[in-house]
Amino acid sequence: MTATEIVSIDPTQGQEIEVVATASTSEQVDAQCERAAAAAAAYDDGGRALRAHVLRSIADGLERRRAEIVALGQRETALASARLEGELNRTVYQARLFAEAVDEGSFLEVAIDHAGDTPMGPGPDLRRMLVPIGPVAVFGASNFPLAFSVPGGDTVSALAAGCSVVLKGHESHPALSVLVHETMTVAAAKAGAPDDLLGLVFGLQAGVDLVQHQAIRAVAFTGSLAGGHALMEAIAARPDPIPFFGELASLNPVVVTPSAASARAAQLAAGIVASVTGSAGQLCTKPGVVLVPNGGDGDALVAETGRLVAQTDAAVVLNARVRDGYCAVGEALSGVAGMRVVASGGTSDSAGFWVTPRLLEIPAAELGGVELHECFGPTTVLIRYDPGQEMEVIEALPGSLTGTIHAEEDERELVVELTRRLRGKVGRLLYDGFPTGVLVSWAQHHGGPWPATNSQHTSVGVTAVRRFQRPLVWQDAPVWLLPEELRDGPTPVPRRIDGRLTVPENLA
Amino acid sequence: MTATEIVSIDPTQGQEIEVVATASTSEQVDAQCERAAAAAAAYDDGGRALRAHVLRSIADGLERRRAEIVALGQRETALASARLEGELNRTVYQARLFAEAVDEGSFLEVAIDHAGDTPMGPGPDLRRMLVPIGPVAVFGASNFPLAFSVPGGDTVSALAAGCSVVLKGHESHPALSVLVHETMTVAAAKAGAPDDLLGLVFGLQAGVDLVQHQAIRAVAFTGSLAGGHALMEAIAARPDPIPFFGELASLNPVVVTPSAASARAAQLAAGIVASVTGSAGQLCTKPGVVLVPNGGDGDALVAETGRLVAQTDAAVVLNARVRDGYCAVGEALSGVAGMRVVASGGTSDSAGFWVTPRLLEIPAAELGGVELHECFGPTTVLIRYDPGQEMEVIEALPGSLTGTIHAEEDERELVVELTRRLRGKVGRLLYDGFPTGVLVSWAQHHGGPWPATNSQHTSVGVTAVRRFQRPLVWQDAPVWLLPEELRDGPTPVPRRIDGRLTVPENLA
Repeated sequence: MTATEIVSIDPTQGQEIEVVATASTSEQVDAQCERAAAAAAAYDDGGRALRAHVLRSIADGLERRRAEIVALGQRETALASARLEGELNRTVYQARLFAEAVDEGSFLEVAIDHAGDTPMGPGPDLRRMLVPIGPVAVFGASNFPLAFSVPGGDTVSALAAGCSVVLKGHESHPALSVLVHETMTVAAAKAGAPDDLLGLVFGLQAGVDLVQHQAIRAVAFTGSLAGGHALMEAIAARPDPIPFFGELASLNPVVVTPSAASARAAQLAAGIVASVTGSAGQLCTKPGVVLVPNGGDGDALVAETGRLVAQTDAAVVLNARVRDGYCAVGEALSGVAGMRVVASGGTSDSAGFWVTPRLLEIPAAELGGVELHECFGPTTVLIRYDPGQEMEVIEALPGSLTGTIHAEEDERELVVELTRRLRGKVGRLLYDGFPTGVLVSWAQHHGGPWPATNSQHTSVGVTAVRRFQRPLVWQDAPVWLLPEELRDGPTPVPRRIDGRLTVPENLA
Repeated sequence: MTATEIVSIDPTQGQEIEVVATASTSEQVDAQCERAAAAAAAYDDGGRALRAHVLRSIADGLERRRAEIVALGQRETALASARLEGELNRTVYQARLFAEAVDEGSFLEVAIDHAGDTPMGPGPDLRRMLVPIGPVAVFGASNFPLAFSVPGGDTVSALAAGCSVVLKGHESHPALSVLVHETMTVAAAKAGAPDDLLGLVFGLQAGVDLVQHQAIRAVAFTGSLAGGHALMEAIAARPDPIPFFGELASLNPVVVTPSAASARAAQLAAGIVASVTGSAGQLCTKPGVVLVPNGGDGDALVAETGRLVAQTDAAVVLNARVRDGYCAVGEALSGVAGMRVVASGGTSDSAGFWVTPRLLEIPAAELGGVELHECFGPTTVLIRYDPGQEMEVIEALPGSLTGTIHAEEDERELVVELTRRLRGKVGRLLYDGFPTGVLVSWAQHHGGPWPATNSQHTSVGVTAVRRFQRPLVWQDAPVWLLPEELRDGPTPVPRRIDGRLTVPENLA
């Protein structure tokens, strides 16, 4: 394997299966971006009907090649087949949900202010809607080879917005990336999409070339904080900086109150271990810290959680970098003053990318100077606190995608205060649940204060489309020039007309 | 005047009137930001009712001190009294319009997905709405002492969103900044706002300290590209980068077609000169380039425009920096190969900040290597083109807030093609009008591709609020914990419930 070969690897053995591609050269990236720019204009001309048609055709196409996709995904990622089947369900559903949103049309945020007198004098005719931002670069993530990679939420958001996409395939599943890219390209063409609506490049330098290409108008990235920083710097060096939407790192604190620890320690332990070790802990919303009260109930919860972790087998992670990172962060965490290893799971002697699940514990008072980093993989840190201390711990935590509270009915005041402290730190508050498992829906939000993300937008759920749109106003435009959605007459989509929200009859 | 004194200056004479304040120290900025953080929490607790009440009280308060505000504004900015009266009308109207938007509630973007079965299995109860992002730093602009400064669109957007604000007062109108800040603070208190909802700091270093303060969660800036770059760098150096909304530089191209030049040269010349020289050319949307066809009709338009510019008096600009920048950019433009000075307006020997209006002309073919920069002040460049060449000129232009087309009925195809080329470059397309004069309304958009702005948001119009909000989801939350807008029952604001947009009865 040479430096420029993109290789499919079996993570259970750490062994090369085949060379899938070579890293894209700068010339290749340039050509893909130029073609994406041409495709963007033609795709936009097709309006909402084409977008919805393309999204549904992609859903159908992925569905048709399900068996092939799941088998190849399993070979390259070692994720369980049930997990990959579920992920494909989600991906197919997502494409269809976004098609529904395109049909409905609210996402255009149409507003029309007719000409007339205003307190500032005569006003012109103003017609605003959100238009596609232009070709978008999407970086596939390692941990969701379907839902956050080539056919993932970023891609369908961009397609729904009316943008062409150039994908940077993740090196952890290159063969799968090529397969689904081809599947989607065929499906898009069948729906009447222009050629080159979806490009695909590989390689580290190709990623930098991509975000610096003048045709690219926005970047979506799900990955590490370091990777996100590198891309942000590359974008800042452009003569025309463009929006970057990064989903980066998240600790996802879970707070267990004294009453919850007392009422349901066993159930909580099982829930924590399932959420921490599922998918080998490689989920953006994996709980990285769990606040557990001091005292007997907390001790029992810790003991039971430890017992379950000790019973957990060694797990295969996605690639050598994840394994090495897991080991390095794990070592750093274990070395923190006051940190205790409560339990370790199984180990493996295989040459593959195997890691040992681990449960750590630290007293809240020891956290003073320690900065807790996300440990990508099956590890979590239990922070033991005395009542009152949990508020300081929350204050000291960085931003996260999620924050979870497990409490009982008799703790309302405490729950109010915990909510108040947590809400400034997170994008999603959960009560008596676990943060892994992110439903794709209209109301979902997957985002949060830095370093969870760098934006005020979501990367999961229908409103993810907004990242790839920009407002455009037509002032005093002749009616024949206006897009259909901006013309007077029966309202084709929800619109704000002279300040009043109006909904089409078939939707009301 | 020492380095740290903030001085009120008469721009017509360039002379100091009084020392208004001293530059804020780092300790003072820190204290203001900490107090703003405390105020943000209390203000958010007041909900929409408090926000609307505060906005209306501020409008009333500014109205009550109108005479004083306009007189002081005139003394510090040399803007005409009619212009300042109009600007105050706009500012007062703006505060009331944003209060209406707060009452209406769409800006919360409420979405509720009830728990239930989904194609991915059982889904939780998800309730999303946009919440205030936290304390916001607002940088007052020099050119709109009321509409884009202390009481401007950024401030009322942040207040509508539920955020506290720390203002960086502009050194071009410090006494006015202090007066309107005091007026707004008294008015906000009268409406029940918490103390320190609005802070005010002065000085260059204070601005840097402000955007780097950990309590500040977003920054709004209207000003120069250089100033914007400096703030973006200061923000990138934070451990937790925050959103920056910059309105920076814009050429605002105006295209005159052959038929328009033929049909109404005199009217166009008058419109161009009014738009270029109004407010001494110190408007973000001033036309910086006008594409005029070659040939007799275009020559006539150039001649008439030149005649009007030659009749225009010297103009007072806002401060020494604007005057020096105008002279420097003007000199650079005049030195471009092929550039011709068509006409110059009046001059002044006064020691004040006077500048000479100027009309320049260059053949399109000469534009090859020239990068046209915004010239802040009463100058515009006429670009002479042959039919077909206008498309290349547009391609070569940087992003702008606006793009304008003057055409006739017989040129539909041309207008379609011009629109297609311009729309990727601008945030607002205008037909047969002039871009100066930006109406505050629901459908307005004041933004555009870099360097016009660095964002996908507007800084004028109701949707400007979105810059200071972030999504937050409550998952499976007990009902007593939910904000009123997220509870089941009669819909208090427009909401998307299980995917369906619903409007309250009183708004439908």
